[in-house]
Order: sequence, then structure tokens, then C-alpha cells
Amino acid sequence: MTAERIVILGADAAGMSAAHEALRTADRQGRSIEVTVLERGRHTSYSACGIPYWMAGDVRSADDLVARTAEQHREAGIDLRLGVAATGVDPAGRTVATADGAVPFDQLVVATGAHPVVPDWALDDDGTPLDRVGAVHTLDDGEAWLERFAVAGAGARVVIVGGGYVGVEVAEAAVRRGFEVTVVTRSRVLSSLEPEMSDRVATAMTDAGVEVVLDAEVTGLDRDADGTVTAVRWDGGSRPCDLVVVALGVLPSTGFLEDSGIPLGEKGALMPDARGRVTERVWAAGDCCDSVRRLTGDRVYRPLGTHANKLGRAVGANLAGGRRTFDGILETAITRFEGGGQYVEVSRTGLSLQDARAAAFDPVTLVTEGTTASGYQPEAEPIALWVMADRITRRLLGVQVVGGRGAGKRIDAAAAVLWHGGTVDDLAWMDLSYSPPFSTAWEVLQVAARRVAERI
Amino acid sequence: MTAERIVILGADAAGMSAAHEALRTADRQGRSIEVTVLERGRHTSYSACGIPYWMAGDVRSADDLVARTAEQHREAGIDLRLGVAATGVDPAGRTVATADGAVPFDQLVVATGAHPVVPDWALDDDGTPLDRVGAVHTLDDGEAWLERFAVAGAGARVVIVGGGYVGVEVAEAAVRRGFEVTVVTRSRVLSSLEPEMSDRVATAMTDAGVEVVLDAEVTGLDRDADGTVTAVRWDGGSRPCDLVVVALGVLPSTGFLEDSGIPLGEKGALMPDARGRVTERVWAAGDCCDSVRRLTGDRVYRPLGTHANKLGRAVGANLAGGRRTFDGILETAITRFEGGGQYVEVSRTGLSLQDARAAAFDPVTLVTEGTTASGYQPEAEPIALWVMADRITRRLLGVQVVGGRGAGKRIDAAAAVLWHGGTVDDLAWMDLSYSPPFSTAWEVLQVAARRVAERI
Repeated sequence: MTAERIVILGADAAGMSAAHEALRTADRQGRSIEVTVLERGRHTSYSACGIPYWMAGDVRSADDLVARTAEQHREAGIDLRLGVAATGVDPAGRTVATADGAVPFDQLVVATGAHPVVPDWALDDDGTPLDRVGAVHTLDDGEAWLERFAVAGAGARVVIVGGGYVGVEVAEAAVRRGFEVTVVTRSRVLSSLEPEMSDRVATAMTDAGVEVVLDAEVTGLDRDADGTVTAVRWDGGSRPCDLVVVALGVLPSTGFLEDSGIPLGEKGALMPDARGRVTERVWAAGDCCDSVRRLTGDRVYRPLGTHANKLGRAVGANLAGGRRTFDGILETAITRFEGGGQYVEVSRTGLSLQDARAAAFDPVTLVTEGTTASGYQPEAEPIALWVMADRITRRLLGVQVVGGRGAGKRIDAAAAVLWHGGTVDDLAWMDLSYSPPFSTAWEVLQVAARRVAERI
Repeated sequence: MTAERIVILGADAAGMSAAHEALRTADRQGRSIEVTVLERGRHTSYSACGIPYWMAGDVRSADDLVARTAEQHREAGIDLRLGVAATGVDPAGRTVATADGAVPFDQLVVATGAHPVVPDWALDDDGTPLDRVGAVHTLDDGEAWLERFAVAGAGARVVIVGGGYVGVEVAEAAVRRGFEVTVVTRSRVLSSLEPEMSDRVATAMTDAGVEVVLDAEVTGLDRDADGTVTAVRWDGGSRPCDLVVVALGVLPSTGFLEDSGIPLGEKGALMPDARGRVTERVWAAGDCCDSVRRLTGDRVYRPLGTHANKLGRAVGANLAGGRRTFDGILETAITRFEGGGQYVEVSRTGLSLQDARAAAFDPVTLVTEGTTASGYQPEAEPIALWVMADRITRRLLGVQVVGGRGAGKRIDAAAAVLWHGGTVDDLAWMDLSYSPPFSTAWEVLQVAARRVAERI
């Protein structure tokens, strides 16, 4: 029996999860497979999410961000080829095109990830990246930022274009490094939060000394006679600066699939089903894919390492004879902003008000303020919770949290209720843990849910 | 229309939750009610759970532990009578007996709480409590302990009899006060944990300098010629000491109901249904009641402020025309031990292995070790998780957690899965929050669940 040839494109979270799980599953099932991974870059299995904390100084070196090295993957029996980019896929002919020739496959996994959005203004006339301007995506980006930070020195002026998760996390890094920081965002800070919750984050950042410019679309950079960037310009304003961070999100790296016939959705994302399958003999996982929202059933592009790990693992199991489904996402997310004397944890799960209305729910929402621990405890920190439920079914639709230490991870209990299709009453009345250093006797998440329940 | 007379026995969490919710509900329903609360003590609505932290020095004064004063309750329109103990109940005649005469009711709520177990050895021959020996239950107890601590001075020897939640929390208080601390427990430390999890807590306490004596039944105290307690004795050992804390749990305060005909269950606990009803015109809530376990349907005595608040509120709604059920408990609990250079958070939810077997489940269990944040983050703390699921249904049955800062409250996500009857796969694969300072890319709770799922 000849071994089935599994070819995986991309050696980060999704691809390597698929690779290892395929080997484990094949072993269990007594199947014979060969796993080849083609990776266009020179790194494997690194935490992109950790780069802002490396920039902040929390992480000692790039090595710490690498979960498994190429050697470790190879020791597990994976034929890992670095510096090999796929330039096309022929599903019918079962080959992947590369600069070095065609690679045949029996089953293909596309896990090529995503690349940052870099607008024209961040590039020179010939398309090369400008000096002192860059994104935050790869380990090389992180290395470049550490060098730029070192050269610029304390007190340098950093403008961050983009107020999403990466923008906020890099703002933290820059504040903690002692820079003068401006964040310019098209809409709000963390626009996946409702305005009243986003405002709380923006306030914490402002209190930390960050200049937050809302509703501003960056239109270009000023440069001096030498070509050095001197300022960021937007509609109605500009800010002199030494460094410019481009944090405008990412797009699926699927350009090489354009002529493959494999269907691509919004933003060019692959659209795997719950098994991770996209078409005959082709699977996909990770930041090159969109996801199905469990609450509405529609597809959205939400690249995130935790989804990549899960769907990658499911794909690895399924293509080797296992059985595993990835049953949708809740858009659960968490981050924090620390620095300048401020500390705020931020998390969300479920739909936004706008999304709930678009899905024809009849949403009731309320913000509740409380404390993370019993009020008399030194651990008590302020916390605000936005809760949304449907008026007709009483179903819980979404929760957002902004608060002090211990606030953020509370979102997981709400996510679990959403996962099970529970009601706001379930959240309000179920048996959550209580002890004075950890919660109020009515856990604040449950108070927030109860108050919404009482308004339905 | 004459107002319906609601009489509530007990002015703590359950009773006052019922009182206020009854008034709110009656108001909403256009009903006329009069609420009278008889409280045998002199305090209302205080946090018994906060007393160990008051003893530790975290809480400034007893007033901080009082959620609402008698005056505040009265301002809300409640006829609150302190120092009035019920000595009997006549359900047919609709009266409560007190030393001052009979109090008539149309609806009665029994919320008399619990009292600590105090063995004979902790009492003088005439039944009065011994000097330097006491329980930790009321604000008066707390006051007495602060005085005893002050008199004894740093370096004094404190023996805590009982290794349950209160025992561990008082051990923390005593360690942080600089005392020499011994904990003597009949079985293990926090016996609602599995042995392998309990051991971790005992180790942290031992590392903090606490002497932990396991499997030891205290048989008596030694006293000198003046009658002063000098040592605690148990089968096979003894320890000289200056102070003795009795932390052997509580029993329902229902002795006055013995001749009432109202059914009492194990340990004398009232047995309210999901509405809080115990018999015609009689309701009950709080530490005088047992609870229904959601996973097995059987009744257990688990006195806890959070259950008292919830069932109390449900009772208040129901007796005034509202609709609310209290749909069982999961035995979710959390605590911590801090002091002597140690910090450990401990939480649990669901069944123990023994309980699962008794309920005819076919349990699979596993302990998983990991970190609370991505390993490269300074926030990363060790965490161990015990997960149990049923082999046939894959249903999640129980989770226990011991770990550093941020470990404990993770239990709530597991509790939410249990609440909804979810499987170990739900816990492993649902969309929980991820960001490097808050979790690993596979949240450790999900890794622990996945590993159990893989063994089924």
C-alpha cells in the first residue's frame, strides 16, 4: 500500500495542527500517510498574538514565541520545507505549483494564513515599504520594531494607524516603552465593542497619556527632503511623528488560488465547512478562512489563532479518517490595555447590536456596573458589562466586558451560555463560583444578566 | 382589600432577598402585601463569607461586611424586628410562636440560616464556650477573633480544627497575621476536591509554613489548672496552642420546626421545591435548606450565600405573584490560600468521582497541567485541572482547578457547560477567549477537556 500524500500549505498554527493531528489519527487508524508542509517563510508555529508583548518587553526573544521549531516538527515525521511558496493549485490534477516545480498531493490543506493590509501611503513610489513605517504581523516585523524602538529612543513619537486589537496592544507596548503615542482610528477604539464600552477603553488610554483620534481616515504621510517620514495626515488633522505602526487588519493570503476554481468568499477567504473541507480533496484552516457564526449561521472573516488551532486539528483528524467538526465561532475575544498608570481588561462574545438587528432579533441591551470582588475586599476592581438578549426567545445574544484585573476572563462563562443557545435567565441564575476575593455574592455577570432579564 | 401578611424568619441573605423581591413584585403586580421580618440576632444582611478576610485584615470593620443596615431595610417598607426568635410554627393556624406571643401570617418564609457545629470538647462542662476557642460564623465571632488575635500577639499558636473552606480561609488569615498555624482535618484539605487536587492545596499550605494534619479526628483539648486551653488532642497526636478555631461546618437552624409537621431532610434541612415552597403557605430559602443537584436530581446540604440570594429572590417573587424557579446547583465553589509566600486559587464544579459512580455514571478522569497565560508571558502561572466526563454520553460531569492568579474563576465556563448538560467536547471546542496575557492559544481548560475527550 502506498502512503497517501498529504500536502499542507503553511507551517503556522492551522497547518501544523493539521499536520500533527493527521499523523496521530493515521497512526490510530492504521493508515499510511506522508505529510509534506510547504512554508513560504522561514518560521513555523509562532505566536503572532505575542508580538505586541515582545515589543512591550514582556517576552525575551523571538524564540520564546515559537511553539515548535522546524526541527521539532521534522522529528515528528513531517517533511517540512521552508522558503517554498505555492504559486497555484490544480485540484483536478492534484498538484501544487511552486517555483521549484509541481508537488503532487492526494489531499491538500490550505493554511497560508493572512497578510497585513498595507495602504499605498505606507509604501514608496516603487512599492517598497517606507523606513520607520511597518505592520505587526511576522517575527521579522517584531524584530524590526524592536530595532526601530531602540534607535528612536525614549520620548520618540509613535503614531499607530488602526484602533483594533493589534492597535491597542501596540499602544500598550509603546506607552510602556516610554514613547509619546497617538492612535488614529477610522471609527472607534475596538470597534467590535458597542460605543458605550469602546468609550471606556478610549478613556483609559487617554488617561494613560495616549492621544486617541477617532473617526479619522489616514490619507498620507509627510516626508522631509531626505524622504524621512515626519508626520501622519488624516482628514482634518495631522501629527508629527518618528515612527508609524500600520495596524489596519489582515486579509487572507489566497491570491495564488485565484485560478484554481476553489471558491473564495468575502475578502478572498476560503470557506471551509464544519469538517474543514472546501472542495474535493482540498481542506482549509486558519487565517486564510472565514468562519461560521454559531448564532446566525452566516460567514464572517475573523482570523484568530485559537480558531486556527481548532479547525486545523479538526482538518488533520478528518483527512486521516477521524471525525471532528468545528461548530462555529462566537466572536469571543479578549485583550487589555496596561500602561501610564492604567489597567483595563476588555472582552466580548456574541453579536453586536447592529448584527443582532440585521439577523432580525429583537434585542434588549443594558450596561451594568459593579465590582470584580466583594466591595469590601482589596481585590475589588470596577467592571462594566453590556448584555444583550432577544425579547421573544429570551436567548442571550452578546456580552461585552470592560474592567480591572479579573474582569476579562469572565466572558468565557457567557460564551459557554451562547455556545449552548442558553437564555439570559440561564446566565443570571446558573451556579457560578462565589467567594469574596473573586466575586460579589451575586456574581456581577449574573447581576448584569438579571437586569436585562427583568427588562424583557 | 386587606394586605396579605408575609412573615419572614431571618434577616440575612435569603430572608432579605425574599423581602425586597416580594415588595418589588407585589408593586409590579398591583398586590397589597405587608412584610414582617423576625431576626433572632442583632445584625442583618452581612457577609459571613467575608469574616475570614476581616480576620486577615483585608476588611476594615464589621460595617463593611453589612450589605444593608436595619434602617435601610426599614426605609424600604419592611417591618424588621431584631432580637425576635421564632420558637415554633403552626402552619394550619398560620402563626409563628415567639417569646413575645404569636405572629400571624398568610405566607411564611423560613430563612433562619445555619449554626456552626461545636463539639462537646469545645464547651465547658456546663455547655458554655471555652475561652480562646470559637467558631467563625457571625459578626460577633469575627469581633471576638480580632480581640483574641490582638491579645495573643504575633507568634501565637493557632490550631484550626477543620480543613474545609472556612478552615483554609482562616488558615490564610492566621498565617498573614504572623501566627504559627496548624490545621487538623478529619480527611483531607478541602475534601470536596479529588485527592490529587486536594494534595496540591495541602502542599501550598505546608510550603507556607502551615502544619497540615490529615485524617485526624480531634478528641479533646488539654487545659491547665486555671482552665486555660493549652493543647488540641487527636487520635495519635496533639499540638500545644494558644487559640483554637472550630471550623467543622454548619447545620440548618431548624430546631424550632420540630413539632411543626413541616418535613425536614438530612441534617434537619428544609427541602424547598424549585419555587422555594415547602408546604402550604410556607416557603424556605438559604442555609436552612438543602438543594437539588442539577446533574443527579438528588438533594444535598450545601449552604452558600449565592444560593441563599438566588432562592431567596425566587421565593420573594413567587409568593407575591411572580414566576421564578431555582433550577438546582452544581456545587460550584471557589477559594484561595494566600500567605507565607504562597498563592493558590482553588475551584470546583459538578460531581466528585465518588458521586459520579454513585449516580451510575461511567466516569473518565484526568489531571492536566498547564499555564494560565501563554508560557512566554510574565502573567503565566501554573494551573492543574481535573476533568471528569461520562464514557457513554460524553457528558461533562465535573471540573476542579488549582493554580496561580487567574486560575480559579475559569471554573465558571465549566459550570456553564454543566448547567446546559453539555459534553466534554463542548468544553474542549467552544469559542473561549484567547490573548497571550490571559490564556494559551488552546485555553488550558479546553486542553484539559480535550485530553479527557481523547480518552473516551
